[in-house]
Amino acid sequence: MPHLSIQYSPQLDDSHDISALCHDLSDAITESALFPVAGIRVRAFRADHESVADRHPDNAFVAMQMYIGAGRTLEEQQRAGAHIYAAAEAFFADRLAGAHFMLSMEIFENRADLSWKRNSVHPRLKG
Amino acid sequence: MPHLSIQYSPQLDDSHDISALCHDLSDAITESALFPVAGIRVRAFRADHESVADRHPDNAFVAMQMYIGAGRTLEEQQRAGAHIYAAAEAFFADRLAGAHFMLSMEIFENRADLSWKRNSVHPRLKG
Amino acid sequence: MPHLSIQYSPQLDDSHDISALCHDLSDAITESALFPVAGIRVRAFRADHESVADRHPDNAFVAMQMYIGAGRTLEEQQRAGAHIYAAAEAFFADRLAGAHFMLSMEIFENRADLSWKRNSVHPRLKG
Repeated sequence: MPHLSIQYSPQLDDSHDISALCHDLSDAITESALFPVAGIRVRAFRADHESVADRHPDNAFVAMQMYIGAGRTLEEQQRAGAHIYAAAEAFFADRLAGAHFMLSMEIFENRADLSWKRNSVHPRLKG
Repeated sequence: MPHLSIQYSPQLDDSHDISALCHDLSDAITESALFPVAGIRVRAFRADHESVADRHPDNAFVAMQMYIGAGRTLEEQQRAGAHIYAAAEAFFADRLAGAHFMLSMEIFENRADLSWKRNSVHPRLKG
Repeated sequence: MPHLSIQYSPQLDDSHDISALCHDLSDAITESALFPVAGIRVRAFRADHESVADRHPDNAFVAMQMYIGAGRTLEEQQRAGAHIYAAAEAFFADRLAGAHFMLSMEIFENRADLSWKRNSVHPRLKG
């Protein structure tokens, strides 16, 4: 953990470097000091088709869903979430200043008793 | 809100216009009268690989997940969900009449205290 | 049901047959004896962009989310989940033996009162 999965409008690949967004969000996750670097998995998926709001051709969205392990307080989750979301807002400041953009993020807590995982990066980074 | 995220079998791009499906579902969301047009984000993602039921080459699926903001009654969610799902059933009537198709939808309610969002379309549509 | 949705690092398409992974996971779902074959929908989505852990170029992840219908006990879900996850571990044994791989799975139970579905494969397989 954590998992941050991003869905986004195809036109954004023409105007923004979405790999750079993934790195910025990873930095923000690390800065939140709630999660180990070895567990960070930020990834983005370009929509193949979409229909956004009033279908204006400039409309675009970025929707982020973050799945984290159980055990943090609500206040910790809210503080980390606000910090990570702020990094996305900064990245898309130009779009948000316009009239055709929608940005969102939600946090979901995974249940420990219905989760399975292995991570071979952890031992290397503890190195 | 709302977010409607669709996953689908790659072969459906050969037989159906999935962009038109997104627009039909957006229309159904608007008709349900529970959600503002400025918040509609319907998007579809084609699977890169799949294994469906008995692996008959004609097998295909469409799986929809709708995430909405908190505050609607269960009855309101059920009524809107049934209407939106019916639009997908109508769109895929030909496939459903066959013996190789699976259609599904679920609604999830986001927690207000673990959600962040900004929408620059809202002010424009309020005009 | 069940739905098994996989997100994965793009580089894995060069080293592994992700379609074969989908089939292996489908086999494991059937072996768990909790779900009808006609309901199996395993699908995989390659990330378009990512930022994984310390950004070592060999880093890769596979993240699985399984959505099932309500009605199984926690113990049944845990037993099936462990069996299905073990199939993914076997498939990626080479990667897990290295120092750059992250594998995970979670199970989520859908609410019957906010789910809609039709399946034209069921009648054919009952044949």
